[in-house]
Amino acid sequence: MLVVMERTALPEQVQHVCDIITKLGLTPHPLPGAQRTAIGITGNKDQIDAEQLGNLPGVRDVIHVTQPFKLVSREFHPEDSRVEIGDGISVGGGDNPITVMAGPCSIESRDQAFRVAEAVAAQGTRIYRGGAYKPRTSPYTFQGLGREGLDILAEVREQFGLKIITEAIDTDTLDLVASYTDIVQIGARNMQNFSLLKKVGRLDKPVLLKRGIAATLQELLMSAEYILAEGNRRVILCERGVRTFADHTRNTLDLSAVPYVKRLSHLPIITDPSHGTGRRNKVTPLSRASIAVGADGIIVEVHNQPELALSDGVQALTLDDYETLIADVQKVGSVLGRNLQ
Amino acid sequence: MLVVMERTALPEQVQHVCDIITKLGLTPHPLPGAQRTAIGITGNKDQIDAEQLGNLPGVRDVIHVTQPFKLVSREFHPEDSRVEIGDGISVGGGDNPITVMAGPCSIESRDQAFRVAEAVAAQGTRIYRGGAYKPRTSPYTFQGLGREGLDILAEVREQFGLKIITEAIDTDTLDLVASYTDIVQIGARNMQNFSLLKKVGRLDKPVLLKRGIAATLQELLMSAEYILAEGNRRVILCERGVRTFADHTRNTLDLSAVPYVKRLSHLPIITDPSHGTGRRNKVTPLSRASIAVGADGIIVEVHNQPELALSDGVQALTLDDYETLIADVQKVGSVLGRNLQ
Amino acid sequence: MLVVMERTALPEQVQHVCDIITKLGLTPHPLPGAQRTAIGITGNKDQIDAEQLGNLPGVRDVIHVTQPFKLVSREFHPEDSRVEIGDGISVGGGDNPITVMAGPCSIESRDQAFRVAEAVAAQGTRIYRGGAYKPRTSPYTFQGLGREGLDILAEVREQFGLKIITEAIDTDTLDLVASYTDIVQIGARNMQNFSLLKKVGRLDKPVLLKRGIAATLQELLMSAEYILAEGNRRVILCERGVRTFADHTRNTLDLSAVPYVKRLSHLPIITDPSHGTGRRNKVTPLSRASIAVGADGIIVEVHNQPELALSDGVQALTLDDYETLIADVQKVGSVLGRNLQ
Amino acid sequence: MLVVMERTALPEQVQHVCDIITKLGLTPHPLPGAQRTAIGITGNKDQIDAEQLGNLPGVRDVIHVTQPFKLVSREFHPEDSRVEIGDGISVGGGDNPITVMAGPCSIESRDQAFRVAEAVAAQGTRIYRGGAYKPRTSPYTFQGLGREGLDILAEVREQFGLKIITEAIDTDTLDLVASYTDIVQIGARNMQNFSLLKKVGRLDKPVLLKRGIAATLQELLMSAEYILAEGNRRVILCERGVRTFADHTRNTLDLSAVPYVKRLSHLPIITDPSHGTGRRNKVTPLSRASIAVGADGIIVEVHNQPELALSDGVQALTLDDYETLIADVQKVGSVLGRNLQ
Repeated sequence: MLVVMERTALPEQVQHVCDIITKLGLTPHPLPGAQRTAIGITGNKDQIDAEQLGNLPGVRDVIHVTQPFKLVSREFHPEDSRVEIGDGISVGGGDNPITVMAGPCSIESRDQAFRVAEAVAAQGTRIYRGGAYKPRTSPYTFQGLGREGLDILAEVREQFGLKIITEAIDTDTLDLVASYTDIVQIGARNMQNFSLLKKVGRLDKPVLLKRGIAATLQELLMSAEYILAEGNRRVILCERGVRTFADHTRNTLDLSAVPYVKRLSHLPIITDPSHGTGRRNKVTPLSRASIAVGADGIIVEVHNQPELALSDGVQALTLDDYETLIADVQKVGSVLGRNLQ
Repeated sequence: MLVVMERTALPEQVQHVCDIITKLGLTPHPLPGAQRTAIGITGNKDQIDAEQLGNLPGVRDVIHVTQPFKLVSREFHPEDSRVEIGDGISVGGGDNPITVMAGPCSIESRDQAFRVAEAVAAQGTRIYRGGAYKPRTSPYTFQGLGREGLDILAEVREQFGLKIITEAIDTDTLDLVASYTDIVQIGARNMQNFSLLKKVGRLDKPVLLKRGIAATLQELLMSAEYILAEGNRRVILCERGVRTFADHTRNTLDLSAVPYVKRLSHLPIITDPSHGTGRRNKVTPLSRASIAVGADGIIVEVHNQPELALSDGVQALTLDDYETLIADVQKVGSVLGRNLQ
Repeated sequence: MLVVMERTALPEQVQHVCDIITKLGLTPHPLPGAQRTAIGITGNKDQIDAEQLGNLPGVRDVIHVTQPFKLVSREFHPEDSRVEIGDGISVGGGDNPITVMAGPCSIESRDQAFRVAEAVAAQGTRIYRGGAYKPRTSPYTFQGLGREGLDILAEVREQFGLKIITEAIDTDTLDLVASYTDIVQIGARNMQNFSLLKKVGRLDKPVLLKRGIAATLQELLMSAEYILAEGNRRVILCERGVRTFADHTRNTLDLSAVPYVKRLSHLPIITDPSHGTGRRNKVTPLSRASIAVGADGIIVEVHNQPELALSDGVQALTLDDYETLIADVQKVGSVLGRNLQ
Repeated sequence: MLVVMERTALPEQVQHVCDIITKLGLTPHPLPGAQRTAIGITGNKDQIDAEQLGNLPGVRDVIHVTQPFKLVSREFHPEDSRVEIGDGISVGGGDNPITVMAGPCSIESRDQAFRVAEAVAAQGTRIYRGGAYKPRTSPYTFQGLGREGLDILAEVREQFGLKIITEAIDTDTLDLVASYTDIVQIGARNMQNFSLLKKVGRLDKPVLLKRGIAATLQELLMSAEYILAEGNRRVILCERGVRTFADHTRNTLDLSAVPYVKRLSHLPIITDPSHGTGRRNKVTPLSRASIAVGADGIIVEVHNQPELALSDGVQALTLDDYETLIADVQKVGSVLGRNLQ
């Protein structure tokens, strides 16, 4: 960290700041400049938040110069991590395979789940998404089928040989969900539900961690750090759009997150163009863009009758749309030397 | 809801939309306009999300015209609600009392907790805040004293006759926290932790619900609706700043939330200028502004040695600052005919 | 427009609203609903802003249902517009050519301008960007070479047969800039400088109109409408990133703007990954993504010695980076059936 | 500035950065730390933007530690500036007077202008606002009466002894507007219209500079610096709300801007609760809050028939509302020892 003094700071004020820094168990390094003095701080233990120095007399600003995360950092693990899902299916890794996860927003019925599963499997997709427990803004809207939904997902896996990803919304149902699913999804609203992250970190299951709608990428990586710190290294990150003033899409899909995360971290990152745009007609273009920007894959919503869907029908692809999407993703991937796995 | 057709929409497209609306169990009301046709929808059951109509051929847009919340709405409960804390202490209500909640961000030690409690009590403050369980962005920073912190809070109540407000961060520790505290605080990160909200809704305790950093006010009210829907009517809302591009404060305190919420809902709303600005020197001015705009009170952070605080020291008031704040708040309140209770 | 009444609105309040609507020269269409009455308004003349109806007693909300723009709308001009630059060079149009504009942020010297021009021309690029008049946040930073810069640009065109695009920052220098350049660039800060837009609308020159850092796409299209309304139909739109809370890039490049604009308007739209990310290492990935999402082209910054650039060196590509970018853009374009023109 | 090296940076990389810094005419100060090396830069001439160092091999980050503005800074002018309008009317200054500017959004007719002027004068208001040239998002909406509006404003001054503030939207009409008005208003859209700022800087007239809808406060102060650098010291800043995701108000009024600006700058700052909220029922509460937070005054919109206003009627106060507002502002001001001048 660096403490920047006021241009008018007195020598005794600089001294006082140095004394406090020492009290905090850190080492001050005064750096007199042309206009003002700055004080470098070393031996920075992350567990101490020294921003309060900003209130000391004569202090202009306090600046962080080191990143707080460790296990997720590329500095500590230079190679790309490959997250194994099982049966030779994985996400990320050196040869940059493209992973597609697809299915309905919510499991609404056995019939709906099967129709969609059949269609996505027919496109060579190997990971099926579907919500059994749905976090909904309103207590009066469809909350998912719960355990019944999980049973249907189990049948889908059985019947179509698909891997399953479904969301765990709380610590109470986490073990149940984990006992059914191949990948545990942590939704945007829970990105900083630290109790849930810690418990997920103790599972022996891959985790898909979605970026919160107003989370910085540093916060996303810190949340992943919570999971890795508990021992679970199989974390896949997901850019799913952030909330901005822009009103033409449900969220603003921030594709620059992909090269940024890949530079700082070894973890794979996919995108969610369905939530990232909230508009069906934008899902395929943004899926092509996601592959082009270097994402390790995408997760998209597909429905056999979107206009009758109980949730998010507005962004769900029809079965025909999905066929087009896969063809487009394959095209863009192939020219960049990447294969749909 | 209203479905707006394209200027070029064909009659059969309008008919198709009407048919789908009927399939969804709603009633369509075509409204031919000068430029285009709009279709009003009545019998709108909230549990159905009809935005997917936006994808039907010929549809330009789908517009919501009714609010999804009920129990929190002023339409259903015209008078201001007064939330009773006990011993004649309450928040909100017709005579617009001003409630101040103050204390350290985290309980760090018995000594620190007592010094601060003594100081705030000396200013006539009757509700003491202090964190025992701290949600922190980094797994490597101070996470709070947990149960030991709760015990210290119990001593504070005993010793100084103060009411206690502390945060519950998950469903696992909710009952424990509730057994100690007078008001259960739900933090910004948990505003849409619906499992926690439902469980809090079954408690017989007042709740302080903080606005998420990127939550619309409608979402805040919907989260409160989750609590009321379970039976707990004693909800206090809290504006604590939202995340924007502005970088001169930690968050942007959105004071217009106060008159907005008071117009649409009967629930009391207070502000948190400490988190709302993240800068000590802005807490007192924004506290005065909060009272002036009509907030039912404020919750602020106070520390006996902010420069050594283990969390959020940068925004904590010194004991002297706090004395000034109370004087200012009293002044502004009095001229508006409101009393510090 | 639609006026939504309160659930509790009285019949005379509904009548009063209808009377005011009539006074405004519009036609009210009361639409009694299950919960509340809505009043449709037709004959909506854009020059009247009827939002003030929102303050009348009994009114809950006022909703716009028609788009305010005309000439830029696809409803009025269904085919994609092709903007001719001259000598067979154009932007946009049915066969979806890819246009690349490249060059330094600022023209710093004849030598620098020529070195970069030679390098981009060698890659087959046909449009050269370079700033002569620079809008800078600080009055103390390099403001561009002005007229001398324009003369250097003229030499570049002469010497390398490149078309020129440079920014016009005010009405005073617009004619001078227009007399030198092939495409007049209107920067993000001037997107709502309506006096400048009107004057540009009277030019017989192609215009590149950049989205403001906090402009909605409707506002962008309305600004283009100002230009078309004056008679100049040769407008190219540019998504160059918007300002959000995200701090890992200079701006957040909003690629969903491309399919959105293409759906509502016939005008071509390109992206600016240099300003859109502000980080050199993200320009090439986001350029690939821009082509994949369907943009008609890109405009990027290239410098022969970025580390010594007088402005925006942090985001400028080196000459080698540029070679890679062109190869990548060509690859992605080709597989989507599009050619670099 | 400070250059932070990667943990893994090689000595020769550190040396290379130092060499470049020297090439840029600055002085490097290597600061070896526990985890990594940082390099302080002194002799920082503002006209050089050294962010490009961020791309050199081994560099992690580049951090600015000094503020770029000078003349507007409190470091250069410790006392609050008082901006004289004439006839003993002023804005800001040590004794913290409260200045109110009020009038219609647009001058629509002599009758309307006079009715409003009479009403605001009756409340003791001494500065009258009214737009003659209106920047409007759509080319098809009312653009103001132009010169005719200016003539009406001149009559208003004559008749009611009010000072006038009206907006100048471009350099072409600036001199004309300045010849009529007592205060030249620069709107939010023009905050970074540097050509206009420079020309305004050469006027001998007070200027009201509004914050752009997505401008940081540093950018606002830099724009003011443009004006002061040209010689005009009579600048009044105005917080008028910023654009965020929040959809319950037209903009989000950022009241923390007031204490922030007052700490860094000597210039007076007022707020615009009319544009800051865009809703009539929020103007008075936010006006009280603005005074409570320490603003030097407010500028608000008042109309004799808001429901028939040609622009912004939704946020205009009625004449009765205005009477209430003045009473409230006076109350809050008085208890804080400030007087309505």
